[in-house]
Amino acid sequence: MSSSSTAVQVIRCKAAVAWEAGKPLVMEEVEVAPPQAMEVRLKILFTSVCRSDVCFWEAKGQTPLFPRIFGHEAGGIVESVGEGVTDLKPGDHVLPVFTGECKECRHCKSEESNMCDLLRTNTDRGVMLNDGKSRFSINRQPIYHFVGTSTFSEYTVVHVGCVAKINPAAPLDKVCVLSCGISTGLGATLNVAKPKKGSTVAVFGLGAVGLAAAEGARISGASRIIGIDLNAKRFDEAKKFGVTEFVNPKDHDKPVQEVLAEMTNGGVDRSIECTGSINAMISAFECVHDGWGVAVLVGVPSKDDAFKTHPVNILNGRTIKGTFFGNYKPRSDLPSVVEKYMNKELELEKFITHEVSFSEINKAFEYMLRGDGLRCIIRMDA
Amino acid sequence: MSSSSTAVQVIRCKAAVAWEAGKPLVMEEVEVAPPQAMEVRLKILFTSVCRSDVCFWEAKGQTPLFPRIFGHEAGGIVESVGEGVTDLKPGDHVLPVFTGECKECRHCKSEESNMCDLLRTNTDRGVMLNDGKSRFSINRQPIYHFVGTSTFSEYTVVHVGCVAKINPAAPLDKVCVLSCGISTGLGATLNVAKPKKGSTVAVFGLGAVGLAAAEGARISGASRIIGIDLNAKRFDEAKKFGVTEFVNPKDHDKPVQEVLAEMTNGGVDRSIECTGSINAMISAFECVHDGWGVAVLVGVPSKDDAFKTHPVNILNGRTIKGTFFGNYKPRSDLPSVVEKYMNKELELEKFITHEVSFSEINKAFEYMLRGDGLRCIIRMDA
Ligand SMILES: NC(=O)c1ccc[n+]([C@@H]2O[C@H](COP(=O)([O-])OP(=O)(O)OC[C@H]3O[C@@H](n4cnc5c(N)ncnc54)[C@H](O)[C@@H]3O)[C@@H](O)[C@H]2O)c1
Ligand SMILES: NC(=O)c1ccc[n+]([C@@H]2O[C@H](COP(=O)([O-])OP(=O)(O)OC[C@H]3O[C@@H](n4cnc5c(N)ncnc54)[C@H](O)[C@@H]3O)[C@@H](O)[C@H]2O)c1
Ligand SMILES: [Zn+2]
Ligand SMILES: [Zn+2]
Ligand SMILES: [Zn+2]
Ligand SMILES: [Zn+2]
Repeated sequence: MSSSSTAVQVIRCKAAVAWEAGKPLVMEEVEVAPPQAMEVRLKILFTSVCRSDVCFWEAKGQTPLFPRIFGHEAGGIVESVGEGVTDLKPGDHVLPVFTGECKECRHCKSEESNMCDLLRTNTDRGVMLNDGKSRFSINRQPIYHFVGTSTFSEYTVVHVGCVAKINPAAPLDKVCVLSCGISTGLGATLNVAKPKKGSTVAVFGLGAVGLAAAEGARISGASRIIGIDLNAKRFDEAKKFGVTEFVNPKDHDKPVQEVLAEMTNGGVDRSIECTGSINAMISAFECVHDGWGVAVLVGVPSKDDAFKTHPVNILNGRTIKGTFFGNYKPRSDLPSVVEKYMNKELELEKFITHEVSFSEINKAFEYMLRGDGLRCIIRMDA
Repeated sequence: MSSSSTAVQVIRCKAAVAWEAGKPLVMEEVEVAPPQAMEVRLKILFTSVCRSDVCFWEAKGQTPLFPRIFGHEAGGIVESVGEGVTDLKPGDHVLPVFTGECKECRHCKSEESNMCDLLRTNTDRGVMLNDGKSRFSINRQPIYHFVGTSTFSEYTVVHVGCVAKINPAAPLDKVCVLSCGISTGLGATLNVAKPKKGSTVAVFGLGAVGLAAAEGARISGASRIIGIDLNAKRFDEAKKFGVTEFVNPKDHDKPVQEVLAEMTNGGVDRSIECTGSINAMISAFECVHDGWGVAVLVGVPSKDDAFKTHPVNILNGRTIKGTFFGNYKPRSDLPSVVEKYMNKELELEKFITHEVSFSEINKAFEYMLRGDGLRCIIRMDA
């Protein structure tokens, strides 16, 4: 950072810019405009890479929007606040979140939904709501935002509704992973799939999101937790997360839903899909037991995917649901998820398998692309 | 009926036989074998025609199985019982049901499911479970059963698990409609969709099943009940059932889910599909509000239909479920649905728009094919 930080001034700082789909990020000096009405400017201290960053950076089956600053799993401190912001003040410890909570709309007022009308995730919008413009630029060229967070920058501007204020005693280098993946997986199980004690749960995809879903199953008292992944490397790590059995679809000639039906006398009680693969979504639905099974979709699909099944699979008493951010309302619920970590009800260390300095951010992308480890923490000050 | 009825004897009686797909039923004298182990022989007094009879009789998109005796919505009296039957005795008033309840399997023991492992509906099986044979014949030629009930016959043989014993004071010419359509629609709303008071409910298909679903919505305190049908004739009748608004997809250039989203500020809270049309199933799902909407499929699809939607429609917090027989367990729950009628909590008369004698059964099929009226009661003794 090469300028003094005050609310009214532009900040010049380092950011990792994606100039083109699939090309390594480039460290650039960017200008970060001051926060406008209902916006806050954050100093990011730690961020990590989630599959969704990689997915929109690759832009296969997604709208390409470049140049762009990715990043949405992070922890930081409020640097300055824009007009009308009363809930946050400089110095507050916060987690930015890719989906927001305005507290005014029907979703925010409903107990069932976290799909805020104003601030729900929009992966195709690269600008801020207030003026339809970006707060990032390099020599006046605007750089697009990503899901309203863009945490691969030392400073970023975020709508106040997308910022959860948390316990300042919480270590940001750990709880930053709660700002997307871990809360998403945990909540998908605890808030949406809701397995009963003793049930059998299948988790498709054993990345950080899937393993957090498995943690949710363990906490719920599931007696069998079956992990499904195409990447056999995942199985060793998964044992630390209470996953009791493993299935690699590549080891079988028949569809994995049939393999699971045989293993479980007709199907699992709950399944949680955390892959983003449309085939896994369909398998995750078809593998639940008829009569009572519930499948929950979490993975982000491609633009032209189609979920396709015979309607009799639905008629036979199976349920499908989907969720963003594990149905947590970011501002209302995330502070208490952080407290779960503080009370040692939830372990986060085991999700953090790598750590790199900001200048090495492309390594974190490589780990994700290779399916190596779970979360890689990027230290912004290093 | 031309022979005396005792448990050990074959009964000769009148039945309406479907010899070929889509051809008028033919009144024949059939032989009805005695009930075997865990079977009962019923004297049918009243039966009615449900869309499912027509659908498998037309056999478009369904496995053809002929000659066959259709019929599954009926009321009657136990004539004789087979070995091992202790729950029923001759003279009991009963409703046969197309899906059964063995009371032993995991589904029967689960609070959530009525999909009995032993006795769930099987539209492709035309024989009894005990010996894999039919109890109906004409000059030794077997005539296939339909969903274990075959009520278009003066006498029929049914598995004891598919028979609900009801209050003998209940008028069978009215409560017979509870043995399929009305319970199915009512239960789809009350047991599966579970709309909250004040919610907006869409019902696709305003036949007897859909209007019973609308009754469920009215009982649940829905503030808006939107009926969707391609047949404008249905709308007048539907007003008697608390349907507050009507949409005919034919009146619009855009998909009906978009029309509904505009009418309801983003979608309905609950939808119940009671058509059997795959397009309506997809519309019924896509018309529910994101964040909290729940769609329930009830209609019987064709063999090669595919339910297809973009997975983001699911991810956005929509739920799809399906149900047979409105999730009622036939033996455990149906007697109390009959009591709802006896206590005047539920009106059945308005569902009964026609009445014919058994010899005129093809008229009842014509009414259904023309979309004329709701249920046509067939008096077996006339
Ligand atoms: N809904 C939400 O709010 C939300 C939030 C965060 C992440 N996500 C999505 O969740 C998914 C998982 O994220 P992550 O960070 O854990 O990713 P990840 O890449 O670390 O893990 C995904 C795992 O799925 C496996 N996989 C891929 N295709 C598979 C298939 N067909 N069958 C079985 N396994 C398969 C991969 O091998 C990998 O191990 C991604 O799609 C991500 O975009 C959604
Ligand atoms: N799941 C179960 O347990 C169960 C039980 C009974 C009946 N069913 C099924 O429920 C459905 C309804 O039965 P019913 O006896 O009321 O039939 P019905 O024929 O009397 O009524 C169906 C109505 O749907 C309308 N319709 C057809 N396609 C439509 C479309 N694309 N959009 C809007 N409306 C459309 C028709 O015009 C008709 O009015 C049938 O498919 C039947 O097989 C299922
Ligand atoms: Zn993420
Ligand atoms: Zn909101
Ligand atoms: Zn029926
Ligand atoms: Zn059973």
